Amino acid sequence: MAFEKVKREENYSEWYNNLVKNADLAEHSAVKGCMVIKPYGFAIWEKMQQQLDKMFKDTGHQNAYFPLFVPKSLFEKEEKNAEGFAKECAVVTHYRLKADPSKPGRLMADPDSKLEEELVVRPTSEAIIWNTYKNWIQSYRDLPILINQWANVVRWEMRTRLFLRTAEFLWQEGHTAHATKEEALEETRKMLDVYAEFAEEHMAVPVIKGVKSENERFAGADDTYCIEGMMQDGKALQMGTSHFLGQNFAKAFDVKFQDRNSKLDYVWATSWGVSTRLMGALIMVHSDDEGLVLPPKLAPIHVVIVPVYKTEEELNTISEKVAGIKKELEKAGLSVKFDNRDTHKPGFKFAEWELKGVPVRIAIGPRDLQNNAAEVARRDTKTKEVIGMDNLVAHVTGLMDEIQQNLFNRAMELRSSKTWKADSWEEFVDIVENRNGFALAHWDGSGETEEKIKEMTKATIRCIPLDAQEEAGSCILTGKPSSRRVVFAKAY
Amino acid sequence: MAFEKVKREENYSEWYNNLVKNADLAEHSAVKGCMVIKPYGFAIWEKMQQQLDKMFKDTGHQNAYFPLFVPKSLFEKEEKNAEGFAKECAVVTHYRLKADPSKPGRLMADPDSKLEEELVVRPTSEAIIWNTYKNWIQSYRDLPILINQWANVVRWEMRTRLFLRTAEFLWQEGHTAHATKEEALEETRKMLDVYAEFAEEHMAVPVIKGVKSENERFAGADDTYCIEGMMQDGKALQMGTSHFLGQNFAKAFDVKFQDRNSKLDYVWATSWGVSTRLMGALIMVHSDDEGLVLPPKLAPIHVVIVPVYKTEEELNTISEKVAGIKKELEKAGLSVKFDNRDTHKPGFKFAEWELKGVPVRIAIGPRDLQNNAAEVARRDTKTKEVIGMDNLVAHVTGLMDEIQQNLFNRAMELRSSKTWKADSWEEFVDIVENRNGFALAHWDGSGETEEKIKEMTKATIRCIPLDAQEEAGSCILTGKPSSRRVVFAKAY
Repeated sequence: MAFEKVKREENYSEWYNNLVKNADLAEHSAVKGCMVIKPYGFAIWEKMQQQLDKMFKDTGHQNAYFPLFVPKSLFEKEEKNAEGFAKECAVVTHYRLKADPSKPGRLMADPDSKLEEELVVRPTSEAIIWNTYKNWIQSYRDLPILINQWANVVRWEMRTRLFLRTAEFLWQEGHTAHATKEEALEETRKMLDVYAEFAEEHMAVPVIKGVKSENERFAGADDTYCIEGMMQDGKALQMGTSHFLGQNFAKAFDVKFQDRNSKLDYVWATSWGVSTRLMGALIMVHSDDEGLVLPPKLAPIHVVIVPVYKTEEELNTISEKVAGIKKELEKAGLSVKFDNRDTHKPGFKFAEWELKGVPVRIAIGPRDLQNNAAEVARRDTKTKEVIGMDNLVAHVTGLMDEIQQNLFNRAMELRSSKTWKADSWEEFVDIVENRNGFALAHWDGSGETEEKIKEMTKATIRCIPLDAQEEAGSCILTGKPSSRRVVFAKAY
Repeated sequence: MAFEKVKREENYSEWYNNLVKNADLAEHSAVKGCMVIKPYGFAIWEKMQQQLDKMFKDTGHQNAYFPLFVPKSLFEKEEKNAEGFAKECAVVTHYRLKADPSKPGRLMADPDSKLEEELVVRPTSEAIIWNTYKNWIQSYRDLPILINQWANVVRWEMRTRLFLRTAEFLWQEGHTAHATKEEALEETRKMLDVYAEFAEEHMAVPVIKGVKSENERFAGADDTYCIEGMMQDGKALQMGTSHFLGQNFAKAFDVKFQDRNSKLDYVWATSWGVSTRLMGALIMVHSDDEGLVLPPKLAPIHVVIVPVYKTEEELNTISEKVAGIKKELEKAGLSVKFDNRDTHKPGFKFAEWELKGVPVRIAIGPRDLQNNAAEVARRDTKTKEVIGMDNLVAHVTGLMDEIQQNLFNRAMELRSSKTWKADSWEEFVDIVENRNGFALAHWDGSGETEEKIKEMTKATIRCIPLDAQEEAGSCILTGKPSSRRVVFAKAY
């Protein structure tokens, strides 16, 4: 393995970059800020997509597709949204290239093809979608509209990191339209729950469900709900957001409907999304100094079988045995790889599949065959056991649940061990700056205070947890009264 | 139904536009040339994607994702490719908007954010991908690379038609790299076969496999293979292409590898793609004056069950019976919709589901219940039969295969009835201009002749069929010798 080993403790950020590169997940492209998602990384993303897509459809949503481009005049309509995204928009101004007369063999944007109206490459699709919904909605009978889209979006970024912050990224964006405020609020919360369930059950990442402070709210939303995860370095990562958009977009795009009493009213809206950022969370929560650690539910390969042999005859005998095991494991729903490459030694293969995070490795040599057994290694605990052949399939299948659960428990323990209540400014600073964790602290509710705390410590309010208990206290910075604690942390 | 009925015979083009709109498949968007794919249309596209994706993976390909943007300097590198696409490229020139000082509330591209190098929105991804492969390939051990990408692409079009020709469309593009010419050629042909199998087995559309003339070749390819289908109006539609790219892109991007004998050579390449255009083919081949007709293998809903009732009590009794039938049909792998809306009469529902192309409709009324039977209607033949309940599930399941096969046969018959050999210029003109079909004719092999024929008749060479038999003849226009017939037709 050409895995340049940097330990998490030495340099977490470099460890992450190396891991993404060496496990063949993604790389930087020739286009500033844009990434190439490599086949192994994309296979994990596909597993995420499939599960999320199923969950969206199970909750009544359908997929559709809206244009990549947003005419500037539509983009401008919802003012806060436009203001929020204007600084990071890629702008198409021409629709043709022509030979550059001053440089043989080179092309230039043809000045004659200048667009009358510039097109924005979508940073998010509320504008183009609500302009479309306008024509779809006349009466309450046309509601609700429950649509999701899988798409690429572009938000120009100066400082990028693979998966975590890239100019182009892949995501899904749900856009729903409702007849009542209550229904829209219910949808907002329902999709937050879907995200939380996905994060915890499939990614094995515990999350805090909460609502954002006004400063951190989506541009154009009345309220932004979110799920926040803790990475191994104690920093927070926003893993998904669900926005209650009120009637803001309906008003901007003049989308009214006739209710049951023939009264005209503006339509209520939500939008919600998760992106390839989730790949970053998955990597940062579970992986270790040997490489990626994947929860079985999102692993493209569940089991790798490595033959340990000297002669070709030995390999043949092992291969025969493996064929049966592989078939049985596949019948049990597992994806199995038999790594019979003759170009690499077992030790090399062990390291490679560890790097790639395959949950279980089975090694089989001539002596194992004699003993009618195999060596089973878990990626998460790095423990090995010799298991009798008769019990092998049941054992390995059982390990999948065990590993999935263990990864979740481990992440939960880490989060608990790095979450503290802060009751004084000194304690607060110590937590976010030295102990590197989540600080549960009282806050006076003002954006100004939040901004000051951010300037002083780089910590932001990740969310006001939905399950936060009423508790009288005083703001960590201003001492003003507060009724519950919020989560502060440094964040990706 | 608000289905504005225009018959195919009256105005094929208007019939198509109405159908796409009324069956809720797609619509034009606020962005010139870009479409919105509506949920029902997108559900059909998803079925296509799933099947194709499976076929790609079964033939050893993996998915990945490459950037949306191509820096101009990379786009220029393969000259023929650049020349071929330059006239239809959307060009990004700025990365930020700012408040327009002269127009309150409006935005403008910020002049300070002008890019040093323009970015082309990918019209196809050979350039960005081969620039990436350069770093992935050193030796024959790194080959082959077999990658596919599902993506959106943009080719600026002045005259657009939903699904058939839009500025932005969705597609998949395979990009493979090989050590030998033979292997690359084999891949090119293999993927052509995959496309043909998909078209015939799943879309129920018979296709001619062939190779394009030089005039119609993909810009940058040494050879372009294609599948061509015939629409009901006798025009051809190119449904998929598979390109043998030779070493053109390897040379343009300097991608060399060390072969088994340590000799350096340029890598051999293929690329292949199908797009949302296939939706256009599917619609135009099978549908009729009542609306869409879907082959069961691509139908989002296989069976719709419509209750025929007067009282709520009747509806309750029917619903109870339907629950069992629905469950059984679903167990047999079918997707079933019970349309129990109380806002519409059965006749309205029948027309709506006909419009949407659902292969089988089951209607159940009180008398049917008494007789322990149901009325089963086929969308393709519009025939109805009363089927006993005991036999219902087996009958309907069997109908799926029958309908799939019937649609293919019908399309094949249409194609046969509209394909003629042309042995004189008069006959040729009559076929392509009056009889509206495919003309099998001799051609002298020159691009000049092809161009002249196109100017005179608007017919182009669709392909030189792979199974064309050697046959001495003389060119339909010039009388020069020719050794086999090619397919001429007007095309979409």
